[in-house]
Amino acid sequence: MVLLNIDRKSTVPVYQQILNQMIELIENESLKTGDQLPPTRKLADRLGLDRTTVTRAYLELNALGYVESRPGSYTRVRKRIPVIRHEYETEEPLINWSSCSNAMSNKLFEYFLNFRPESVKDLKQGVINLSPLDLDYRLFPVNEFRRCLNQVMVNIGSELLRYGDYQGYAPLREDIAGRLRIHGIRSSADEILITNGAQQALELILKLLGKPREKVAIEAPTYANVIPLIRHHNLDLMEIPMKEQGMDLDYLADEFRKKVPLFVYTIPNFQNPTGITSSQEHRENLLAICEKYRLPLVEDGFEEEMKYYGKVVLPVKSMDRHQIVLYLGTFSKVLFPGIRIGWIAAEKECIQRLTAIKRFTDLTGSNLVQAALSAFLRNGYYDLHLKKMHRVFRKRMTIALQALEGSMPSGATWTRPDGGYTIWVSLPRSYQDEQKFKQLLIKKGVLASPGLYYFYSSHQHKYFRLSISSLEDGEIREGIYRLAEAIRELMKKEN
Amino acid sequence: MVLLNIDRKSTVPVYQQILNQMIELIENESLKTGDQLPPTRKLADRLGLDRTTVTRAYLELNALGYVESRPGSYTRVRKRIPVIRHEYETEEPLINWSSCSNAMSNKLFEYFLNFRPESVKDLKQGVINLSPLDLDYRLFPVNEFRRCLNQVMVNIGSELLRYGDYQGYAPLREDIAGRLRIHGIRSSADEILITNGAQQALELILKLLGKPREKVAIEAPTYANVIPLIRHHNLDLMEIPMKEQGMDLDYLADEFRKKVPLFVYTIPNFQNPTGITSSQEHRENLLAICEKYRLPLVEDGFEEEMKYYGKVVLPVKSMDRHQIVLYLGTFSKVLFPGIRIGWIAAEKECIQRLTAIKRFTDLTGSNLVQAALSAFLRNGYYDLHLKKMHRVFRKRMTIALQALEGSMPSGATWTRPDGGYTIWVSLPRSYQDEQKFKQLLIKKGVLASPGLYYFYSSHQHKYFRLSISSLEDGEIREGIYRLAEAIRELMKKEN
Repeated sequence: MVLLNIDRKSTVPVYQQILNQMIELIENESLKTGDQLPPTRKLADRLGLDRTTVTRAYLELNALGYVESRPGSYTRVRKRIPVIRHEYETEEPLINWSSCSNAMSNKLFEYFLNFRPESVKDLKQGVINLSPLDLDYRLFPVNEFRRCLNQVMVNIGSELLRYGDYQGYAPLREDIAGRLRIHGIRSSADEILITNGAQQALELILKLLGKPREKVAIEAPTYANVIPLIRHHNLDLMEIPMKEQGMDLDYLADEFRKKVPLFVYTIPNFQNPTGITSSQEHRENLLAICEKYRLPLVEDGFEEEMKYYGKVVLPVKSMDRHQIVLYLGTFSKVLFPGIRIGWIAAEKECIQRLTAIKRFTDLTGSNLVQAALSAFLRNGYYDLHLKKMHRVFRKRMTIALQALEGSMPSGATWTRPDGGYTIWVSLPRSYQDEQKFKQLLIKKGVLASPGLYYFYSSHQHKYFRLSISSLEDGEIREGIYRLAEAIRELMKKEN
Repeated sequence: MVLLNIDRKSTVPVYQQILNQMIELIENESLKTGDQLPPTRKLADRLGLDRTTVTRAYLELNALGYVESRPGSYTRVRKRIPVIRHEYETEEPLINWSSCSNAMSNKLFEYFLNFRPESVKDLKQGVINLSPLDLDYRLFPVNEFRRCLNQVMVNIGSELLRYGDYQGYAPLREDIAGRLRIHGIRSSADEILITNGAQQALELILKLLGKPREKVAIEAPTYANVIPLIRHHNLDLMEIPMKEQGMDLDYLADEFRKKVPLFVYTIPNFQNPTGITSSQEHRENLLAICEKYRLPLVEDGFEEEMKYYGKVVLPVKSMDRHQIVLYLGTFSKVLFPGIRIGWIAAEKECIQRLTAIKRFTDLTGSNLVQAALSAFLRNGYYDLHLKKMHRVFRKRMTIALQALEGSMPSGATWTRPDGGYTIWVSLPRSYQDEQKFKQLLIKKGVLASPGLYYFYSSHQHKYFRLSISSLEDGEIREGIYRLAEAIRELMKKEN
């Protein structure tokens, strides 16, 4: 008689518990070749289960060759090639992954282990976390997106579950082209490649243009995730300091005279982490320098649509008559990041080359999600959502800037972004111990992102980034007050 | 007065047409700073549109800084930094993408342009296409998956639209671990990384283990998409001939004595393209060789669950007591490929290292799709679907093998797969002209995939792969008859 233990509280489905235990019994020969299994109805009754659950387990056993059943006869254990049973734990590991991996992967792994910005979940209750640049999920238009998923599954159906176009779902590329048009960018759907977020866009560009031991020019500070990625491609970094108006173009021009990089990476709007928006003139000058050197300019427009105050400054790509700009966009910072949809808009051949790389590295993106997003845009949900986001975050940014004004100790300075979510704070002087400062912040019930994440080489312990993206009005205000208190205490102590 | 042309048949949404044309009018100064826009109601009436459509366009204009409106007042054109208008077409391109790209990307691009297996869509009506290894989309469980999407959006909601776990949605990793258990693999959820299909799994492994100018051992013939990918990583290929029982292990051992590769890539079940399944003994021997050299063994189990006849042979990973096997799986060849979900099961540190690489190349996969798939598995839809697929394709494979038996000219041989979708056909002797043969096939109303796609170096024009994955019973039978006729004609001509 077969003895089975069913745990109804387990996350393992019941039919699979039956299956696993049956396999165990067959493999340890408690059930031998030719033995009958109990009839499904009988076993179901005994275990107090629905018969279909038992039937499912039996079908699976049959598919796996453990049993055979003929019409009108019992299910019996069949002869099957025996499994060699090993106890992994007792064996010596044969492979040293660190020596197996290449040097660049080893460095990346080290970085991965050390670079762990605190997520909200890891923090004790009540700590206000000004670190993550994740959108406030309380604002996500979940129902609207669910309706769009349904709509496309009903209207388009199986076509969405096939391999998609390597370049991305064509109607969505048209939608993106339409939105770019609003920002003065005249790319057609042919000149757009849809990627798994802007991060994959950067990866593909590095795969296309990377040549060992060459350099990539980046702003210092810059988007933290781009630094290890460039290093992983075995490339060096040319760090161009950020000034109040954007990257220091005199410095850039000087550097170019010494060594021309592979390309320039810039974030002209609400730069991550500084929040700085460069002027039209600055953009024209940057473009002119790149044109002079015939250099690709990678413009990260990740928060293009999140402008709250001031005059509109159009993207560099809108002035790109020689098609040297590779423009990156994403839906992660306006809508939600979980759909993993970003894009590159660039000259057609460049897009084809990037598509070739994407095709061989992960074939295609998800048609289903891309079609749902297209429906979301065409139904007008995106515009309504954008309007709401502007309203909410214009207020939140105003609150943040007022709170800074009202609470920061003298000598501390900060940027005043026209949009986006991040503010860059500079202390009156640098402090010594990063870990100690972090402990102090946590004691005060707040966290912010240390400036060192955003630099590759030289930096002082003097900066940090505040992000208001995941917090509500009151949380922002209270968080900044706590932060100001911590800074005041730190400055006093270190005096 | 503002003149707008609305094209209701256009794929561009109407509100966006209004928006684009308004921007045009403002930019070419038909509308000047301070000019009034017509009230939304009036414009809507004139154009015969719903007022909300016009309102949406105005809101967007406002967000972009083109207009301003105060409560109770008209909407007016505001001062905005002028856009520099360029006509791209007239400018000389500044960048030569071919010289900008690295050598490996150039090669990949060339391959991409030349390697274009005919898709069904490109073919004239009536041609039966035995080339693509895409699943028959008529069998996709669309409604069940739609229900699962709804279920998770309703029950879990916004959490699914945030950035996910770098390693993949934890419940789905548990589900996969549960399924692997059925195949004798004892990986825990910690030892699994979810990828964008099996292709990204290969990409990540190459990123981890690739060292320039080293070799990767592959079967010859093998999965076509892996060849350019390995080459793109600047690695050489060690081609191990396929024999009737799987890769030639004597040859492999000989090669190893000359040069040890970085890893071995094998497809033990229904190998793509040959359809060959290696025996338990062969698997043990292959594993023993890799263990001896302390070499990672990449086992591609892409069709693990698609076995129709014969005894079950367990994956190499099930015997992997030293944890040297990196096992790849995918849902693309049983369920549908459009969700882009594959995985790697390997030793925990190896998985962490691969996760680090994935984290910096595209952050995370889509939580939403992964959660829906998890619900699909837990609701039992996957088992029901698998059962249906077995029933359908056992029959289709039987039909294919019978049709080959009944129609192929003497001297032609073919494999008799125990599962999967592909059959490898060898002609009595090699033919001369690939293009000519293709023309002949198309004339006969059939297509198959030329063998040369599956080799890197030496090969003869003698083989091709038949895939039954996308065709129904009658199409398979008729396709094979037509193919046999074409081969007979070819052999006669070339005599």
